[in-house]
Amino acid sequence: MRVECRETRRSWHCLAMTDEFRREHWERGAEWPLTLLAVVFLLAYALPILRPGLAPALAQACELATWFAWAAFAVDYAVRLGLSRRRAGFVRTNLLDLAVVVLPLLRPLRLLRLVTLLSVLNRAMGGSLRGRVGVYVSGATALVLSVAGLAILDAERQSSEPNITSFGDALWWAATTVTTVGYGDRYPTTATGRFIAGGLMLAGIALLGIVTASFASWLLDKVREVEGESQAATRRDIEALTAEVRALREELAGLRLGSPS
Amino acid sequence: MRVECRETRRSWHCLAMTDEFRREHWERGAEWPLTLLAVVFLLAYALPILRPGLAPALAQACELATWFAWAAFAVDYAVRLGLSRRRAGFVRTNLLDLAVVVLPLLRPLRLLRLVTLLSVLNRAMGGSLRGRVGVYVSGATALVLSVAGLAILDAERQSSEPNITSFGDALWWAATTVTTVGYGDRYPTTATGRFIAGGLMLAGIALLGIVTASFASWLLDKVREVEGESQAATRRDIEALTAEVRALREELAGLRLGSPS
Amino acid sequence: MRVECRETRRSWHCLAMTDEFRREHWERGAEWPLTLLAVVFLLAYALPILRPGLAPALAQACELATWFAWAAFAVDYAVRLGLSRRRAGFVRTNLLDLAVVVLPLLRPLRLLRLVTLLSVLNRAMGGSLRGRVGVYVSGATALVLSVAGLAILDAERQSSEPNITSFGDALWWAATTVTTVGYGDRYPTTATGRFIAGGLMLAGIALLGIVTASFASWLLDKVREVEGESQAATRRDIEALTAEVRALREELAGLRLGSPS
Amino acid sequence: MRVECRETRRSWHCLAMTDEFRREHWERGAEWPLTLLAVVFLLAYALPILRPGLAPALAQACELATWFAWAAFAVDYAVRLGLSRRRAGFVRTNLLDLAVVVLPLLRPLRLLRLVTLLSVLNRAMGGSLRGRVGVYVSGATALVLSVAGLAILDAERQSSEPNITSFGDALWWAATTVTTVGYGDRYPTTATGRFIAGGLMLAGIALLGIVTASFASWLLDKVREVEGESQAATRRDIEALTAEVRALREELAGLRLGSPS
Repeated sequence: MRVECRETRRSWHCLAMTDEFRREHWERGAEWPLTLLAVVFLLAYALPILRPGLAPALAQACELATWFAWAAFAVDYAVRLGLSRRRAGFVRTNLLDLAVVVLPLLRPLRLLRLVTLLSVLNRAMGGSLRGRVGVYVSGATALVLSVAGLAILDAERQSSEPNITSFGDALWWAATTVTTVGYGDRYPTTATGRFIAGGLMLAGIALLGIVTASFASWLLDKVREVEGESQAATRRDIEALTAEVRALREELAGLRLGSPS
Repeated sequence: MRVECRETRRSWHCLAMTDEFRREHWERGAEWPLTLLAVVFLLAYALPILRPGLAPALAQACELATWFAWAAFAVDYAVRLGLSRRRAGFVRTNLLDLAVVVLPLLRPLRLLRLVTLLSVLNRAMGGSLRGRVGVYVSGATALVLSVAGLAILDAERQSSEPNITSFGDALWWAATTVTTVGYGDRYPTTATGRFIAGGLMLAGIALLGIVTASFASWLLDKVREVEGESQAATRRDIEALTAEVRALREELAGLRLGSPS
Repeated sequence: MRVECRETRRSWHCLAMTDEFRREHWERGAEWPLTLLAVVFLLAYALPILRPGLAPALAQACELATWFAWAAFAVDYAVRLGLSRRRAGFVRTNLLDLAVVVLPLLRPLRLLRLVTLLSVLNRAMGGSLRGRVGVYVSGATALVLSVAGLAILDAERQSSEPNITSFGDALWWAATTVTTVGYGDRYPTTATGRFIAGGLMLAGIALLGIVTASFASWLLDKVREVEGESQAATRRDIEALTAEVRALREELAGLRLGSPS
Repeated sequence: MRVECRETRRSWHCLAMTDEFRREHWERGAEWPLTLLAVVFLLAYALPILRPGLAPALAQACELATWFAWAAFAVDYAVRLGLSRRRAGFVRTNLLDLAVVVLPLLRPLRLLRLVTLLSVLNRAMGGSLRGRVGVYVSGATALVLSVAGLAILDAERQSSEPNITSFGDALWWAATTVTTVGYGDRYPTTATGRFIAGGLMLAGIALLGIVTASFASWLLDKVREVEGESQAATRRDIEALTAEVRALREELAGLRLGSPS
């Protein structure tokens, strides 16, 4: 983008370019610190849930760390919004980021930033499109399972007759929910827990859809190969025909030159 | 349609056109009043279910409102049937509307008219086909969940050993059913409740199918783009060839003119 | 087939044709009596299950009717096998019919012949391919649900701690199983019941697959329409080009005639 | 591969070929002994699980047999790795084989070698691609169900409040899990059991995806047929056009010869 701008030097367009470039520059610079912060947040979020009888000082430190992470995400959102030309468009395409900042109660959402870590794993693996989709789906499913497990464990602590009381139970419940198996040996009993379960069920439906679509895409690729060959053959035929007509025209030109003599 | 009719002025066809036009005119005029009535019906239907110990006068008013809504839907159906040319065809393509009128017990069906509200939301959003499908599917799922929740709560009140006793339980049960998770911590015990559950399961299977088909359609679009480009290239080749032949013919015409001299 | 045979009169091929024709003739003639017999069998099968305290004479009549139906199916299979040229091929493509005859314990399988009734319903409706698939899927699902309900009720009567004790319970259990919801409020406890459940689960997976494939086929049709138009345009272009070349050739023929003079 | 090598005789490429050929030779030779060993392993694995009160000597023999099978698989892996040119590539494409050797606790994985038996069944049946996919999916599902049943029964023996206590229960639980029905009348209570269940749920999602994709592939084949016909027609048109132009050119050549005279 910067290169294009230097080459054309059209002032108005270039100004917008520069702004977008600044935002992109900020986003690239902020990517890793924010991911690191998300890891810290994950620890500060998970620790009090997994160890309920934590020393008060440590519990307070964790509380502080989660609020610090929230503040950092809010600043990041504000800067990116400030650097955007079309602010309405920015807000509309970054609704999830807005939800993270505006609703501090939806804390687990902040962990979605950890998806960034998957891109590292991805680059290390290289490979085909389907392989990368596989990495993303597996990684995102694992992340969603652990975060949902933590969140449900936290929510069910408030229940009068809790059903999910350990992290193992919570993970097991999350797995039976996301695959839509739903044995019913573990299930949430609080309103918060049921909202988390609802989100996890939606994730499960999306997971089923993506797996099926991947199988279908593999089949479609096979079909496309065959069809591509057939179309290439048609085009080779047309090229041969064009060469034929061109030769005909040249012959005619020779005939014209020879005819007056 | 009106414009086409004025232009052609063929009397028979035009008469049918006029009738269809009148029906369309009625449907457009009745759309908003009936939707408003459906909202009123929703309130009059939900209130006695959510607040069982309602003042008798208010309960009677709600009862009256639901019967008034039924009468209005019946009148609307009768008028549309009367204005139709091919009545058998009208009945066959509007079976759901007929069910709403003929089976007053299937009251929740009347709320399906609220789907009209989605079209407003849709127009406000504009956007692509897939975005609009998303709006419809999300809106219809939310509507079906709430209506099924109300209906099951109403039905399970009659049960000797009720399992679903609050609207929160009812919504939670509806969510576990439509996603085919089915924990089994809540389930209907009456025959009416089981019929409602059966309808909800069918909705769940349709939901799964639509989500998967949307992913597949996205993949198909990608494929179509590539194929469309290949076909466009083939057509460009053919056009170049046609120009070549046309030039050849013109040259030949020139040759013909020059040859006798 | 008969017409083709009369036209060609090649003796060997024609002999095989005649045999195949005889088998087809038998199958057409036997279709309705066997379907009627399946209806009788359904009644004789359902009655002792739905009314356990049946008069001994009536129970015996029902028992007799089911054995008579089995004998009729066995005779039908034997005749069709006898009229087939390639017997190994006939056995391989009619495995289900063989199972019905060889395994008298799998009595409910005999009811699958009632699918014939769906073809009547189908002919009455006419309509598009998707509409007919819809009729078959709905009809087959309804048939499978009722037969599985009867069979599970019969099997669970043998259980020491029965869970499914009325036909309503049995139908409800079948619906939660075929949609893969599986609340777990009702479930089979005997080995026979679990085998029936396994078959019903397979039917459920097939149902999910067919519903999704139908949505996908609808999308594919939309895509095919667009692609078909594009291909038709290409072919129109080629036809125009051919006409152009033909005109050129005619002109050249005129030139040739004019040139020697 | 050997034939190509003899023909070209390029020393480096040929050396690599020879190595790959040796590995392939080893793999073909080892295929049947290892499959037989897997059958033995299946018996030695299943017997102590199905008969808990086994004579100590027999139990020890079974234990010995399972370790012998492990050693044989380890030797096979080492030989194949040693004969590979690109070892990193070999390790990456045979991760499952590595897991079998490195993690002796994942004993049931060794039974996956029994998939080889399916290829025999497959060759005996011959037939179309879809038929063979059907054989593999059915066979693999049956194998996975029995192995998961054995493994869960073994794992749940350690539980304080066991839920799955017989092989019938275990198979029934496996069937309800793989089809994502999940009644919840039987479910694992130990950590090991829950891991096995997680693997089975993944298998279930894959099963759903493959069944749907097979239906979709059948539909795609129908579409491809129609499109292939349309493309063939286009190509026939182009061939006719080319013949027309060739005839024109020949006529012109005749004109040229005639013109000077």
